[in-house]
Amino acid sequence: MKTGEGKLVERIVEALGPKGAPNLALGVGDDAALLRPRPGYETILTCDWFLEGSHFLRGKHPPDSVGWKCLARAVSDVAAMGGQPKCFLLSLALPQTLTGRWLHQFLAGLRRAARSFSCPLAGGDTTRRDEILITVTVIGDVRAGEAVLRSGAKPGDLIFVTGRLGEAELGLQFLRSGRTLRGRGDLSIKKHLYPEPRLALGQWLARRRIAAAMMDLSDGLSSDLSRLCGASRVGARIAIGKIPKVKVPQRKAPKGLDATELALHGGDDYELLFTVRPNRARGLPSAFEGIPLTCIGEITRERRLVRVGPGEREGTLAVRGWDPFHIENSRAHGATASVRPLSLRSNLV
Amino acid sequence: MKTGEGKLVERIVEALGPKGAPNLALGVGDDAALLRPRPGYETILTCDWFLEGSHFLRGKHPPDSVGWKCLARAVSDVAAMGGQPKCFLLSLALPQTLTGRWLHQFLAGLRRAARSFSCPLAGGDTTRRDEILITVTVIGDVRAGEAVLRSGAKPGDLIFVTGRLGEAELGLQFLRSGRTLRGRGDLSIKKHLYPEPRLALGQWLARRRIAAAMMDLSDGLSSDLSRLCGASRVGARIAIGKIPKVKVPQRKAPKGLDATELALHGGDDYELLFTVRPNRARGLPSAFEGIPLTCIGEITRERRLVRVGPGEREGTLAVRGWDPFHIENSRAHGATASVRPLSLRSNLV
Repeated sequence: MKTGEGKLVERIVEALGPKGAPNLALGVGDDAALLRPRPGYETILTCDWFLEGSHFLRGKHPPDSVGWKCLARAVSDVAAMGGQPKCFLLSLALPQTLTGRWLHQFLAGLRRAARSFSCPLAGGDTTRRDEILITVTVIGDVRAGEAVLRSGAKPGDLIFVTGRLGEAELGLQFLRSGRTLRGRGDLSIKKHLYPEPRLALGQWLARRRIAAAMMDLSDGLSSDLSRLCGASRVGARIAIGKIPKVKVPQRKAPKGLDATELALHGGDDYELLFTVRPNRARGLPSAFEGIPLTCIGEITRERRLVRVGPGEREGTLAVRGWDPFHIENSRAHGATASVRPLSLRSNLV
Repeated sequence: MKTGEGKLVERIVEALGPKGAPNLALGVGDDAALLRPRPGYETILTCDWFLEGSHFLRGKHPPDSVGWKCLARAVSDVAAMGGQPKCFLLSLALPQTLTGRWLHQFLAGLRRAARSFSCPLAGGDTTRRDEILITVTVIGDVRAGEAVLRSGAKPGDLIFVTGRLGEAELGLQFLRSGRTLRGRGDLSIKKHLYPEPRLALGQWLARRRIAAAMMDLSDGLSSDLSRLCGASRVGARIAIGKIPKVKVPQRKAPKGLDATELALHGGDDYELLFTVRPNRARGLPSAFEGIPLTCIGEITRERRLVRVGPGEREGTLAVRGWDPFHIENSRAHGATASVRPLSLRSNLV
């Protein structure tokens, strides 16, 4: 009684089957999945598009990177709440021609991610389409009252970021210029293809009540900081010189790339942006499990984004990260509203 | 600091904003949503694609029907477990040109559905695309141990369906032949455009432990019965004459439509298919809140699907409902694997 779609689901389950998934009462194969919530915990819900041509390119992104990244970026939202992923749903549409090797490698990358994040498959939906379309929904949990929201920032809070910003954007530029993971620029390409959500760090910041407000950096610091400030009804003053920036290898990298611009507006880093009350900041280490924690500015009462020095006059911080519906973005891509934009997070090219 | 995507999200929140949603600790506007689970309940998780060209046609399906139906079909999976929807996530990709009137009407239909099913928006993701792409994830709950699975059927169980089958498929055929909701064939077109998930009925069947196995009819009786039997490792014998069938108005309907074929293989009815132990079936009423409950056959030990009479010899019940990856389906549509199939649930044309 097995049909075409049944076989596809069977292959997905074989690759990702939720064997011994904790709290997962029922996985793939019924109308819906059943998850047993932990007493005293709240459920975290988040979903993310991952679309061919918009978020990845079939010819540039290896299938196992597509599998890894579609889950990693949704899990990153759970990390940004201070939570733990519990399971995910996969909505997958793909051409019949890709149900062989491409699907095999995609599922291998997805399986590695699912194991790495302790986030097994719980269910999903499949259909046929001439482009690869993916939505991943991640269900996580966090102890009741411990979730860190975007809206918790107050004037005087110090602003921190994890890791080094702009690396994934540099990796994307390398990829677009024809380089691959085995070529030069390995580190940044790896960060673009296989981002690591900051799960342990996010949980540590939440559990110890260090972070007052938090979100993940997916669309670029300028855009995401603007969103955090909007949710908290505050502004921010950023010390440009303090931002931990990607190192751009001048002779190897595509021309015209500037580390500060990459760090301010480049997307896909999946680092954490968080604020800390001044009295809580004193005891903060400079790194957590090898990941740098860097203070880059402070939250202000005045609701605007300000950039300061070095060697420049105080001015407005332009919001130029990724926004699929922003007119200037689409113009920058030479696209009009009726034409599909080449909408990778690439407002720098 | 509002950007293009921010404005779109604002419009969605204005239309669907989760005001006073019970158990929803945090809705749209953060990295993720937070849901407070009810003690003693399990969480139900399900997601469904709703893609232009595959599941609806921009020129034939009114935007408010697209809004209603994308939520209704995912909620139907919760009904099929005997559960109650709690909230949903909306993944929406659409062209810039549709962010005006189309979006307004789409959100109106979605809001009506969200209110009708007590299922508020909790979050989602938006992006731009030249086709309308939708995934809806519904989160529901059910008392621990009360969920009705596909795998609970046993030989000797009686097989029931709710409502009348084939109506939505007839409605689709009317739509494709150029009729609209105000024209003839209103009832079936309405059932195709605005399906009603059987929430109260599913909960009643689960709570009273009447249904041993249950699923919703989305891809057609033959396909879905095959899946239920597969999950339960049983077979079924269906009395063709007992199936409650759509009435095909012979002079008004597109030619060549047969009520039995529509009822056996037509999709999108979102009625319930369930089995009942013989000793539990005796007290079952013939209708629940006006929705007919009809016994159409029984579960068998032999793992095949059999159709019987009237006026025909016992034979194998062909599985010919909707399957996007089925080769014969795509041939029936004149499509090859490399070409997008016209993949509405229309294996009857």
